[in-house]
Amino acid sequence: MQYKAWEGFTAGKWCVEVNVRDFIQRNYAPYDGDDGFLAPPTSATKKLWAEICELSEKERKAGGVLDADTKIVSSLTSHGAGYIDKKLEKIVGLQTDVPFKRALQPFGGIRMSAEALEMYGYHIDESVKEIFTKYRKTHNDGVYDAYTPEMRRARRAHILTGLPDTYGRGRIIGDYRRVALYGVDFLIAQKEKDKLLMDGDMVPDKIRDREELSEQIKALKALKKLAEIYGCDISQPAQTAQQAIQALYFGYLAAVKDQNGAAMSIGRNSTFLDIYIQRDILSGAITEKDAQELIDHFVMKLRIIKFMRIREYNELFSGDPTWVTESIGGMGVDGRTLVTKTSFRILHTLQNLGPAPEPNLTVLWSKNLPEGFKAFCAKLSIKTSAIQYESDDLMRPEMGDDYCIACCVSGMRVGKDMQFFGARANLAKCLLYAINGGKDECIVDKATGKALQVSPEFAPVLGDGKLDFEDVKKKYENMMDWLAGLYVNVLNLIHYMHDKYSYEALEMALHDTEVRRFFATGVAGLSCAADSLSAIKYAEVYPVRNAEGIAVDYKIVGDYPKYGNNDDRADELAVWLVKTFMDKIKSHYTYRNSVPTMSILTITSNVVYGKNTGNTPDGRRAGEPLAPGANPMHGRDCCGALASLESVAKLPYEYARDGISNTFSITPESLGKND
Amino acid sequence: MQYKAWEGFTAGKWCVEVNVRDFIQRNYAPYDGDDGFLAPPTSATKKLWAEICELSEKERKAGGVLDADTKIVSSLTSHGAGYIDKKLEKIVGLQTDVPFKRALQPFGGIRMSAEALEMYGYHIDESVKEIFTKYRKTHNDGVYDAYTPEMRRARRAHILTGLPDTYGRGRIIGDYRRVALYGVDFLIAQKEKDKLLMDGDMVPDKIRDREELSEQIKALKALKKLAEIYGCDISQPAQTAQQAIQALYFGYLAAVKDQNGAAMSIGRNSTFLDIYIQRDILSGAITEKDAQELIDHFVMKLRIIKFMRIREYNELFSGDPTWVTESIGGMGVDGRTLVTKTSFRILHTLQNLGPAPEPNLTVLWSKNLPEGFKAFCAKLSIKTSAIQYESDDLMRPEMGDDYCIACCVSGMRVGKDMQFFGARANLAKCLLYAINGGKDECIVDKATGKALQVSPEFAPVLGDGKLDFEDVKKKYENMMDWLAGLYVNVLNLIHYMHDKYSYEALEMALHDTEVRRFFATGVAGLSCAADSLSAIKYAEVYPVRNAEGIAVDYKIVGDYPKYGNNDDRADELAVWLVKTFMDKIKSHYTYRNSVPTMSILTITSNVVYGKNTGNTPDGRRAGEPLAPGANPMHGRDCCGALASLESVAKLPYEYARDGISNTFSITPESLGKND
Repeated sequence: MQYKAWEGFTAGKWCVEVNVRDFIQRNYAPYDGDDGFLAPPTSATKKLWAEICELSEKERKAGGVLDADTKIVSSLTSHGAGYIDKKLEKIVGLQTDVPFKRALQPFGGIRMSAEALEMYGYHIDESVKEIFTKYRKTHNDGVYDAYTPEMRRARRAHILTGLPDTYGRGRIIGDYRRVALYGVDFLIAQKEKDKLLMDGDMVPDKIRDREELSEQIKALKALKKLAEIYGCDISQPAQTAQQAIQALYFGYLAAVKDQNGAAMSIGRNSTFLDIYIQRDILSGAITEKDAQELIDHFVMKLRIIKFMRIREYNELFSGDPTWVTESIGGMGVDGRTLVTKTSFRILHTLQNLGPAPEPNLTVLWSKNLPEGFKAFCAKLSIKTSAIQYESDDLMRPEMGDDYCIACCVSGMRVGKDMQFFGARANLAKCLLYAINGGKDECIVDKATGKALQVSPEFAPVLGDGKLDFEDVKKKYENMMDWLAGLYVNVLNLIHYMHDKYSYEALEMALHDTEVRRFFATGVAGLSCAADSLSAIKYAEVYPVRNAEGIAVDYKIVGDYPKYGNNDDRADELAVWLVKTFMDKIKSHYTYRNSVPTMSILTITSNVVYGKNTGNTPDGRRAGEPLAPGANPMHGRDCCGALASLESVAKLPYEYARDGISNTFSITPESLGKND
Repeated sequence: MQYKAWEGFTAGKWCVEVNVRDFIQRNYAPYDGDDGFLAPPTSATKKLWAEICELSEKERKAGGVLDADTKIVSSLTSHGAGYIDKKLEKIVGLQTDVPFKRALQPFGGIRMSAEALEMYGYHIDESVKEIFTKYRKTHNDGVYDAYTPEMRRARRAHILTGLPDTYGRGRIIGDYRRVALYGVDFLIAQKEKDKLLMDGDMVPDKIRDREELSEQIKALKALKKLAEIYGCDISQPAQTAQQAIQALYFGYLAAVKDQNGAAMSIGRNSTFLDIYIQRDILSGAITEKDAQELIDHFVMKLRIIKFMRIREYNELFSGDPTWVTESIGGMGVDGRTLVTKTSFRILHTLQNLGPAPEPNLTVLWSKNLPEGFKAFCAKLSIKTSAIQYESDDLMRPEMGDDYCIACCVSGMRVGKDMQFFGARANLAKCLLYAINGGKDECIVDKATGKALQVSPEFAPVLGDGKLDFEDVKKKYENMMDWLAGLYVNVLNLIHYMHDKYSYEALEMALHDTEVRRFFATGVAGLSCAADSLSAIKYAEVYPVRNAEGIAVDYKIVGDYPKYGNNDDRADELAVWLVKTFMDKIKSHYTYRNSVPTMSILTITSNVVYGKNTGNTPDGRRAGEPLAPGANPMHGRDCCGALASLESVAKLPYEYARDGISNTFSITPESLGKND
């Protein structure tokens, strides 16, 4: 083998090419035991965590931000070394040189950076403002230079919402394991090789690809420097578990120093790291206590990842999430489980450090997971409510067994797929537009004093008579045609500008050079729209018009089947919506020939989307929240948990490959008679 | 008419759309008289010019640069007002706030900016260097990130030479007349309209176009601010001749503040301005003396346009040219001459201020030009040697009657065409590569100690026998195939990066939104290559090989026909070369679907190209200059001036649409018996 650091590992093609999955498959030890082996926190862990808790308390008291850079623009090498408590930390590295000090990351948009600072009583340095106004254009400025008036209207009306046009798109996950397994020099050499092969006619796409590859190589060189700042050398492969975790974390730290993305997920690392831990334990170099300490310290670092964000962002997401999602467990395509002792160790941080929303510990669930692991997960869910579950059985056939989750539901093969994040289109509002010919009853056009015409003037439903289902459905399809086209165009433009002004060089350097790109769209208001269609079809719905003749409310006579009760009449309308909208999305050119996907996924932002949606034909009142993700409307799933889940399960994953989210609260007792 | 400023003009479609040609055609007064009406310099002109001469003298004494910005990055609004002598100047505006102080223009390349300053004893401000290293990438950095090793080799070997990869490409000419005729507000409104129409699928090209249009609009707004700095309002159309010249000059000044391009030509303005001068003279507002004073002051401003440039640039161009080319005269497609009194007035500056190379006064020559104008041109040529001539009769059928010349020979319709400048490929050197299979006998490969392999390893000519014409020709075609492909790819890449990092927003704002783009390639060493082929074909040429087996010299037995003597045997080889290389260029994708053209045009840089070209089969010694442009090799055109000119005239303009240059020195006596 090429490196002494690889001694004790089983060789394979991973030795001559970047292939982390091959390394894992040849070297990992599945674990089907229980949690009996786990170690409690060390005194260093407890002390360090107490210091972090104290800082968190100070931060809360300070109004949400303890300290913030106003002058130093964050880059991989912008700051000196920073520590919580240097002598205690097994895994080092902070986003800036002081704990809890937020970094300044203006490449997504200088106005947002300045505004976010002002919000917390800081003032951006004038010279930085000047640089990013006069000399260095930002993603946000690029987008607004290219937006059409129609795009601005749709954005203002919130029919397209949460668009990553004022902030970093995020959702791109570097394969941080590569840093540990290969060392940066090997990765640079591979990229140099790829660049030599990227020859031929210099069409713009090729030129862009070559320039991006150069930026990736520069980013890898900067990554080595980042480690050097902390006295570490990551040019060569990691020799120990500690070095492996440290190198992996430097990779991730570099990503969050470079990008303030909406979701900065970390990948699928525990089983990979288990191989190093296993080797060190077998050789007697470390004990279980040491192993858990490394994982605890690593997780502490992930818990304190912070970004400077504006109020609107926090409102949209109902908080300040970072989505440091770590995907855990799952099954291999060869039938072996990918659960290892480190899958336990990382979940165990919820006990050693107490529950926390970050990192977003996500279990890739399979019927075939070892019973010991299932029991441990159930126990921790009951105890902490802090585990997210994803169906590995659903995703594995599409994604293989080395994918991970970005944010909450977006599956991607680690280092092989990336995603252009696309926020979402409000399908409930789109139905209202269909009825009113594209006029938005919630917004007054200042020029005319009337309801704003957002889409082109489509034919509205006329008269006060009962809404005719076929007529509404046809008009809805027309409006979805318009919305899908506009949506794809908006995203094409946003991602073109993000690549141009805020390219994720470091994260992409930790991907294969030829990646698959997903063009991730999303829908909101699915259950509200499905129920509205059901009401029109199965009950009698009459429009209530205002003086201007716009339908602003609906009178419902009779009852109708509701999505969430395993009633095909309603559920099929939800399925129809998903398929119809996705087919319309797919019919358009997508940037960089990316693969269009869709998510049904609003975990919290459904509240703010609902605020911007008028009365709907299902009886929902204007401003009331939409249901999150694929959830039934609140309180309408009245046939029990199983019927509710059955309805959601009918939604076709093939049409919503970016994931379907269901927020489900349940009392432990409902799960059975024992724990 | 929409504006009071247009009173006295004949209306037409120019009143409702941007159409300067229509305005000219409806309003200009052809002049077929002589130069008797011209006025001498006013005392203000003399005083001002004396002050400029004094500054020039100081500049020479200071070693070439009198003063330079090291901190302020040049933009349209970067400087306060600057004057030579405020009370004397009829036309105001300087590149910086102090006369002869050079501006800092790092967008083309920060290293070049720093180096140029160092050369003259200045030191670039560290913060500027930091901004353009850490935050704002430059054109030069983009290009080098994307270059392939083969491109770097070809560049280093000077087979591709003078590439605009370290400096601004230039050659783009705004229609500065629009500023005067319409005022900036009208131009902004037109661009806003165009942007609204630029809708549809958001493919990358469309997104780029929309962003560029936004940048154009911003540049126009900045142009108004530039005028405001000098107390002028150019938002509305110019009302007087003085205002028209001033507005037009502000347009041009904005261009040179924005771009340090290789050639910053000004267009075709004299006949346009004549309309304003004529109106003011007729109304009694000004006299001939005043008119000439305005033109003299305008031309003085053009004479002192200066850029900060590196030594290599000056060596390449044998000086520090700015190519402020003004195209004068010509014929209209309706048969009327476009010569006006102001065509005389602008040439008359060569008398009032004395001869000067800038602005590059270029007469568009036609057999049908009025005799009075022809005589005046001849008189001034004899007196000043400072007029350039172009064949209007050759270009008018292709270009219409509102084209102008960029640099020395590149014809473009004003405001409707732009050019991607492409420097040139050395065809003489390419022939040597054909013989040696792509090895460069002038360059040692440090890795091997042998001649550098620049192209892929093509089959070389073997043995010491007489070169076989058909064999060499076939190998030459192969090598031209390779060279043309590489050349186009290099230029695709350069122009992609120039658009990305140093887009000419102001100049393009003064073009139609839909422009025709020329992809301008060029060849050097044409006559040397043609003569070499002729020697191989008609004499006996034997290679002389070095120890490595590389042909490094040629023994010629017998004589051969030479290009430049109206001998078809040689001239046809030159024609074959032009057609063959151009056909190969045309077979490739060209950036932004631009129209490929070619120039035969090295006015001075033939010297440096010759330095990098070894012994050639025509008997030319290594390092000796190639002939400039389409010129015969020095001293070989021995059948008289007419035969020499006839040879050049055989080169097909359709294959060299970017122009054919012939540098021709002649004693006045040769032209005839009277002056």
